[in-house]
Amino acid sequence: MGPICPKGTRRPKVSQYFRMPRILFDDLHHALTAALERLDFTSERASLCARLFAETTRDGVYSHGVLRFPRFVTTIRNGSVDVHAAPMRVSALGALERWDGRRGPGNLNAHASMDRAITLARAQGIGCVALRNTNHWMRGGSYGWQAADSGMIALCWTNTLANLPAWGAVEPSLGNNPLVVAVPRASGHLVLDMAMSQFSYGALESHRLRGEQLHIPGGFDASGNLTRDPAAIEASERPLPIGYWKGSGLSMLLDAIAAMTALGNATHQIPREPTRETGLSQIFLAINPAALTSENEGDAAALDHIADTIIDSVHTAKPADPSQPIRYPGEQTLRIREENLRLGIPVDDSLWQQILNL
Amino acid sequence: MGPICPKGTRRPKVSQYFRMPRILFDDLHHALTAALERLDFTSERASLCARLFAETTRDGVYSHGVLRFPRFVTTIRNGSVDVHAAPMRVSALGALERWDGRRGPGNLNAHASMDRAITLARAQGIGCVALRNTNHWMRGGSYGWQAADSGMIALCWTNTLANLPAWGAVEPSLGNNPLVVAVPRASGHLVLDMAMSQFSYGALESHRLRGEQLHIPGGFDASGNLTRDPAAIEASERPLPIGYWKGSGLSMLLDAIAAMTALGNATHQIPREPTRETGLSQIFLAINPAALTSENEGDAAALDHIADTIIDSVHTAKPADPSQPIRYPGEQTLRIREENLRLGIPVDDSLWQQILNL
Repeated sequence: MGPICPKGTRRPKVSQYFRMPRILFDDLHHALTAALERLDFTSERASLCARLFAETTRDGVYSHGVLRFPRFVTTIRNGSVDVHAAPMRVSALGALERWDGRRGPGNLNAHASMDRAITLARAQGIGCVALRNTNHWMRGGSYGWQAADSGMIALCWTNTLANLPAWGAVEPSLGNNPLVVAVPRASGHLVLDMAMSQFSYGALESHRLRGEQLHIPGGFDASGNLTRDPAAIEASERPLPIGYWKGSGLSMLLDAIAAMTALGNATHQIPREPTRETGLSQIFLAINPAALTSENEGDAAALDHIADTIIDSVHTAKPADPSQPIRYPGEQTLRIREENLRLGIPVDDSLWQQILNL
Repeated sequence: MGPICPKGTRRPKVSQYFRMPRILFDDLHHALTAALERLDFTSERASLCARLFAETTRDGVYSHGVLRFPRFVTTIRNGSVDVHAAPMRVSALGALERWDGRRGPGNLNAHASMDRAITLARAQGIGCVALRNTNHWMRGGSYGWQAADSGMIALCWTNTLANLPAWGAVEPSLGNNPLVVAVPRASGHLVLDMAMSQFSYGALESHRLRGEQLHIPGGFDASGNLTRDPAAIEASERPLPIGYWKGSGLSMLLDAIAAMTALGNATHQIPREPTRETGLSQIFLAINPAALTSENEGDAAALDHIADTIIDSVHTAKPADPSQPIRYPGEQTLRIREENLRLGIPVDDSLWQQILNL
């Protein structure tokens, strides 16, 4: 068995973004808000929706930020997204609520749902909102940061159109169903935002465009062999689930929980054309550990200390490659955020003109 | 890139178990109960603890059932497990509770905690118990089946001693932190029980003893190359997290959530000697979708239908190898359970004598 994953290898840097013109965050936010207002969003909703797009690019998640804005506009124009629709509560029991997203903008629906889960968790220690009939939430991590900024632990996930074969199958019946897990911490939240496929189709595409192989196998080729060739995986539609059969099983269960709790669509019911992908089911779960802790066992500092010592134990482990620091999920985000706020957000020039002229 | 994972490959069958003598379930349960009574368990606690061990082996999870019983006895005798301790509630707010396991038997503590989460979810739609200061829960899947048998969706997880290096590290600072996800369904629950490492140390050991290579890379060798050699991974203590950096991140976050919500130990604080592994932190989360559904949108049949159609969409996908059916998590359990109940539970003869003579 040869070395298919060189010591300390990480995903390639998205260095091409740093050759792009940089736009100040406020200018980007303003331009996106204005564009959404021209698409008939109310001012308040335009501002929040624009902020979520701009913050995603600010945080270095280039694939799901401003770069997705043109596709978002397409889904508004083709009727997949109703710019006026706001989520409506369908039923509730205690700390669990079911909401209908009414096919409103996916990021606004998700933000409102996490906000509601946080409110429930403030009152009842934990809160869960199951949302159906919604649209693509863009960067899932946004709702993890949102919860952690409110001092909440969060788990949230979405189903998607079918884009991942179950383990042992050659055609997709599962979604890559991103899962977000967040833990609040004074000196930097831990936020994990991961799809159930080892690589997203976006990552496969950008490797192919750069003429690069993946650094580890990312799926099967047409002959059913594992491959590092992104084009072969795009052609076969057989990306690899994380952990092989494990990620396949987890994707299936996340879909079932979202669809059953929201009484909404499962992956196999969602239109497979990306700009027609609508009617998604999502789960937003917030846990409020400080509510228990401040009561009788100290304060939030005790919780912070736990997160800090976990990170210390990871940071101080012997690295495979001393030039590659060991990082916790979310650690790079703060550095990229600071840099992009200071220097401006990298936005492709033709995309910027497109936004201004929308 | 050669084929490192032949089409449709699955994990090797545990065929050696079928050459063992078979003990009827009731006889096994009775013998384990008697042994626990001799170890000073009360009758009721002995019976439940014994049932959880016997059911694990009945369901084919041989590594975490009766085979673990001698090690469990060791942890009682060395004082890691207090047979008389029952969990005690420390604090509560609404649907979230923190309990102290007081180093009681891990499977009894976990069973009581999931039972409490189910009770909370009956009243409030969702319930979460964070348990600290507990012991190894043996088969995590037990608590998923327990919740699903009560009509509940469940997520639960445990931290463990450090046995998994963070991504980019060569020494373990993370646990393999098994995660259990369960969805109830009339014709067979979906239950996923998975560690954050691609293979457990138990699986590595059994491959080594059979002289078999893993069918996919399971970790790094001493030189830092990915390998299928189980002995090389045992020696390096570098098993591979599922999804590489993704499973590493998820393990870290699950540890942080359990330790912070329970205000208990994190992985780095847990003794690394397996028979001294104690003071674990765990999360038990139950969601009650039927509570919302029966209210105003039909009944449990609607929920069952959702799970059924998801499974149909997976079962009917074109298989990579027509001789290898595509399965949902938990599907094999019912077949193995039926067979083991009918023919008897395979138990190694010397282990059986050891139990009888305890």
